[in-house]
Amino acid sequence: MSHLNQFRFLDSNPVVREIAFELYSTIKDFPILSPHGHVDPQIFALNQPFSDPSQLLVMTDHYVLRMLYSQGISLDDLGIPRLDGTVFQEDRRKIWQVFADHYQLFAGTPTGIWMEYELKNVFNVELDLSGDTATDVYDHINSCLKREEFLPRNLFDAFNIEVLCTTDAPHTALTSHQQIHDSDWNGNIKPSFRPDSLTNLGNPNWLRDLEKTSQLAGFDVNNYSDFIKLLENRREYFKLHGAIATDHDTRSPYTHKLSDQEASNLFEKALKGISDPADTQVFMAHMLMEMARMSRDDGLVMQLHAGSWRNHNQMVLDTWGVDMGGDIPVQIEYTENLKALLNTYGNDPKFKLIVFTLDESSYTRELAPLAGHYPGLKLGPAWWFNDSIQGMTRYREQAMETGGIYNTVGFNDDTRTIPSIPARHDLSRRIDSNYLAGLVSRHIINIEQAIIMSKALAYDLVKTGYNL
Amino acid sequence: MSHLNQFRFLDSNPVVREIAFELYSTIKDFPILSPHGHVDPQIFALNQPFSDPSQLLVMTDHYVLRMLYSQGISLDDLGIPRLDGTVFQEDRRKIWQVFADHYQLFAGTPTGIWMEYELKNVFNVELDLSGDTATDVYDHINSCLKREEFLPRNLFDAFNIEVLCTTDAPHTALTSHQQIHDSDWNGNIKPSFRPDSLTNLGNPNWLRDLEKTSQLAGFDVNNYSDFIKLLENRREYFKLHGAIATDHDTRSPYTHKLSDQEASNLFEKALKGISDPADTQVFMAHMLMEMARMSRDDGLVMQLHAGSWRNHNQMVLDTWGVDMGGDIPVQIEYTENLKALLNTYGNDPKFKLIVFTLDESSYTRELAPLAGHYPGLKLGPAWWFNDSIQGMTRYREQAMETGGIYNTVGFNDDTRTIPSIPARHDLSRRIDSNYLAGLVSRHIINIEQAIIMSKALAYDLVKTGYNL
Amino acid sequence: MSHLNQFRFLDSNPVVREIAFELYSTIKDFPILSPHGHVDPQIFALNQPFSDPSQLLVMTDHYVLRMLYSQGISLDDLGIPRLDGTVFQEDRRKIWQVFADHYQLFAGTPTGIWMEYELKNVFNVELDLSGDTATDVYDHINSCLKREEFLPRNLFDAFNIEVLCTTDAPHTALTSHQQIHDSDWNGNIKPSFRPDSLTNLGNPNWLRDLEKTSQLAGFDVNNYSDFIKLLENRREYFKLHGAIATDHDTRSPYTHKLSDQEASNLFEKALKGISDPADTQVFMAHMLMEMARMSRDDGLVMQLHAGSWRNHNQMVLDTWGVDMGGDIPVQIEYTENLKALLNTYGNDPKFKLIVFTLDESSYTRELAPLAGHYPGLKLGPAWWFNDSIQGMTRYREQAMETGGIYNTVGFNDDTRTIPSIPARHDLSRRIDSNYLAGLVSRHIINIEQAIIMSKALAYDLVKTGYNL
Repeated sequence: MSHLNQFRFLDSNPVVREIAFELYSTIKDFPILSPHGHVDPQIFALNQPFSDPSQLLVMTDHYVLRMLYSQGISLDDLGIPRLDGTVFQEDRRKIWQVFADHYQLFAGTPTGIWMEYELKNVFNVELDLSGDTATDVYDHINSCLKREEFLPRNLFDAFNIEVLCTTDAPHTALTSHQQIHDSDWNGNIKPSFRPDSLTNLGNPNWLRDLEKTSQLAGFDVNNYSDFIKLLENRREYFKLHGAIATDHDTRSPYTHKLSDQEASNLFEKALKGISDPADTQVFMAHMLMEMARMSRDDGLVMQLHAGSWRNHNQMVLDTWGVDMGGDIPVQIEYTENLKALLNTYGNDPKFKLIVFTLDESSYTRELAPLAGHYPGLKLGPAWWFNDSIQGMTRYREQAMETGGIYNTVGFNDDTRTIPSIPARHDLSRRIDSNYLAGLVSRHIINIEQAIIMSKALAYDLVKTGYNL
Repeated sequence: MSHLNQFRFLDSNPVVREIAFELYSTIKDFPILSPHGHVDPQIFALNQPFSDPSQLLVMTDHYVLRMLYSQGISLDDLGIPRLDGTVFQEDRRKIWQVFADHYQLFAGTPTGIWMEYELKNVFNVELDLSGDTATDVYDHINSCLKREEFLPRNLFDAFNIEVLCTTDAPHTALTSHQQIHDSDWNGNIKPSFRPDSLTNLGNPNWLRDLEKTSQLAGFDVNNYSDFIKLLENRREYFKLHGAIATDHDTRSPYTHKLSDQEASNLFEKALKGISDPADTQVFMAHMLMEMARMSRDDGLVMQLHAGSWRNHNQMVLDTWGVDMGGDIPVQIEYTENLKALLNTYGNDPKFKLIVFTLDESSYTRELAPLAGHYPGLKLGPAWWFNDSIQGMTRYREQAMETGGIYNTVGFNDDTRTIPSIPARHDLSRRIDSNYLAGLVSRHIINIEQAIIMSKALAYDLVKTGYNL
Repeated sequence: MSHLNQFRFLDSNPVVREIAFELYSTIKDFPILSPHGHVDPQIFALNQPFSDPSQLLVMTDHYVLRMLYSQGISLDDLGIPRLDGTVFQEDRRKIWQVFADHYQLFAGTPTGIWMEYELKNVFNVELDLSGDTATDVYDHINSCLKREEFLPRNLFDAFNIEVLCTTDAPHTALTSHQQIHDSDWNGNIKPSFRPDSLTNLGNPNWLRDLEKTSQLAGFDVNNYSDFIKLLENRREYFKLHGAIATDHDTRSPYTHKLSDQEASNLFEKALKGISDPADTQVFMAHMLMEMARMSRDDGLVMQLHAGSWRNHNQMVLDTWGVDMGGDIPVQIEYTENLKALLNTYGNDPKFKLIVFTLDESSYTRELAPLAGHYPGLKLGPAWWFNDSIQGMTRYREQAMETGGIYNTVGFNDDTRTIPSIPARHDLSRRIDSNYLAGLVSRHIINIEQAIIMSKALAYDLVKTGYNL
């Protein structure tokens, strides 16, 4: 049996490793704060057993899907239903076998690291996963999933999660959150307000989603002014259900204030279904300004995730739908794009914007200098493709000297896979400990400072950053 | 005498170095696969002795020329003939003396590292090169070059080169390749199809090159349809002579499918000599689509080298011509530019595109995510200015976590200098071993995985990547 | 009491640290060459005691101000006078207390590192600065400042500064420089010619500054031709006062030669106060060409600092003015933008341009290849936000393999805070020693080469780079 090494991911230089392990030991058992992620709250509302290993660990993880797909494995063979309803592979064991046969693809990748933690530490799998052991490992996990301790709420408790924020559209009624709240379980699960379906006029279901939201709010939306009221109404509703933050996805973080008349005109075009891409872009730029205004007024922390070209592979989108691993980053410009927003709200003590990037070249050049100046701007952690050993290390090395750790907000796991939550936080805590140990070993900071900074990165900065 | 240290370029941390040396030892004697480079095949066809040390190691190496030029040394003093035919320095010993006098410029650079290998390991020079030893070193190498063991074919065999691909224009008859094939020597030297002279309407000799190619093909090219047939014809000819790949140089990797009518119109303008830069750009974008289509159909692997502003220094171009060290990289965008090509061919199991970049900021942001999704896309190794210790290390650190090593194609030496071939492969094998040793030492992968991955990077992935 | 560790900032791997310390020991006592910075020459002309610790170390340091401001501390509370003259906090001890209360913000940042050196090594403070020790530390430094050894000229001498260049507008009479020259003190302080106020038509005080300059030159400026004469006249005046270099700040390093008629037209518009942003941009591009021409003719080394969006935070600008920490970098393109200038002057042995960047992604991609080719181009050191442990390390790792150290010009401290001068040079010398030690420890260079290169980086290259 291969256990996970206790010093894993720490520097192999013994001087650094010893300090890193000391720092890690002081923070490894802190409760998990998960202020941004994509777990489906219904899982906790229903609290039913997970169906099987393939569904839980392969079919719903776009990191796994994209790597297998890149090596020529069809999503059909992984049991992903086509949009037309066809499912080509119903046998979950065969799906698992495909995954296991190609498990070496993930060696050295974050997905591989998280998966090893899940197999070894969450499910106590004693075998190393490979094509040969696939069946045994499947059986072992499958039997775990039938046991009470692996029910979602019990995993949540076992993982010592203090708070978990989900991501929710404005047209959702937050029924699952209400059910959780009404249950006898004390898990702290909060919705986050993600209004992209309404603020992005390019959403093909914009009218439908607007209609749904309007029904939930209980009033008609006939014009731009109603639309603004609708968004304010839903934010209030989300706050009543515990929300502490909003989240916004944009390809470019362009911000620009329109006059009411201009905004109104664009809104009217959208109602008529005649918006063009330029309309969509400038309306989003304007809505980011409006979202910032509302955040200043209602105190919800604003999160901006910029730079992903969603569904770059049209064939994959048309055949299997979204979130199949075909989102690709693009170059991002922040200094000019965020100027309007930061000049209007960035000096206001009641406002807080947390920015994430997929373009690492913006760390030293734009984001650290911006966060090191504007009181209203904080940097989110290394995101998505950058949420990796090297990615987190580069984030610290490139953004901390100018931005300072106190202009950051700790770690986000950003996951939709529950068993990966402790895996991701453990990795982050190890890498941050390792980074700080490097500073101590070079006498850049001393050990007392490192202990304080270590706790800040793992816990305190999440609390203050998200007003928890 | 100073020998090369056996542990050179490996991490000085003994934990990492020991593992790195173990990995390196398992791969250092693998045959060399050189699927992309610029060696002149005539050298092997004729198999004449190299003329002298300066011609071989200084005058034909644009890496050497650019560094000397940057320090104020005229290309005239290095014996580079002017385009008008004038040669200001005929004395090869004096050229070598200039090189030796400035040899310290190359300390710590890849050129210096390769050159040390060539001097010490290929030519067994016992002295350290400097202004003082220049004459002795020159004499030593010069006498080597007269010996049979230093004939090109013998070097090729001594270097244990399993296959070497050259780069060839469509209007070449591949006579040298045929001569090699017809000889009693078994060296495996393959042409690669590089049609830039025809696909780039900005080529000042476009009409001439088109005419030459047409003559070789044996039919007239009167319209766009003939032009496409011509390219298909020449690809077939190259395949018959052993080609396995094509290669394409573009400043921007823009891809865009034109209608036949649009393409035809641009072609007609080119025939009339009235193409403008915008025509050239969009025609190239279209031809990349056509080249991808042909690759899917005929199985030649498509290579795309993007991002070099060729001949940036107009005075140098006008005086001494191309390849004098004046090509400068520019920013490159892949996500949007490659979308048309990848959406059309990137999901097709019969198609393979290998992309190279001069813009390292694209590794994490664009190329690794693209290669980690599209089955038809693989990443070429760190290229040109990035083919260095730090450059190869950054390539691994920035692209492997997201792209995975199995979406890469091993190493390319990309050289035109034969003695540098083993030098470059040795450096690459050391740096990759060092990278993997770092992962092992931090328990990211284990040593068994590292041995497999090490072999993959040095050999297996080149074979599969280029369908060898 | 906590002293600064003698091995601080060096690699903790003992193999590297020992070599690094050996290299550092050979250069640490070299005289300081400071060819680019922003110290006010009047400080040395008057040679009065510094007023107090807060004025010296907090209120005039935009690195300190921006970090405190980013954490919600008003510039009013730091005693920064508003543009309307209001000062909200006159008590320098209270300002110091605010700084000390937040001193942990600077842990791990270059500002923190420099400040520790200033406190411990310049002022011999025995206590660690914190909110608790603020008063004692203030008193200690304050008493120092009253002593003769802490007078500006004595600090200059004690710091072993061989030459210090200031930055001066064309409309300054260089009175302070003349006073220093006329005094019995031998400190070598040179002006640098920074004509942005005249070459940037967007300067709101352009007409006023033009008028002032014209008066100093003693002739009227009625047209573009006069304007060029004015600039030539002032450069000559600066040279007579010891200037060796010019300096230019641009958001984009765009260079473009206008015809005399075009330039004249833009100048006429400026005289009428009707220039628009496009005029400003193209006129600056043209003036960079003119400045290069003049540099070729008069031998002043041309420095180009590109990529800062000045005064990004309009509210801060309007309330407290410039240099408050609100300058933010933008993406920068060099290959295309510098082509006109480099093609015209970059091959000329009488011309030298030193380029600085705030966009690290340009190191490997553009700047190192350009500097590794054009004899007239040299790379300035890691600048501003990149003048940090990680930033200087990345600069070496990313630019030296392609550019070579001999196409760089050593270190610039770029400071306006006199006590930080030795702190910054010491840090630079440590990091460069550490970089070279890494190369030695991996057998990339040998120790003899490293000693030569170490001296070059700390001293020789500054002398040759700035023609000192």
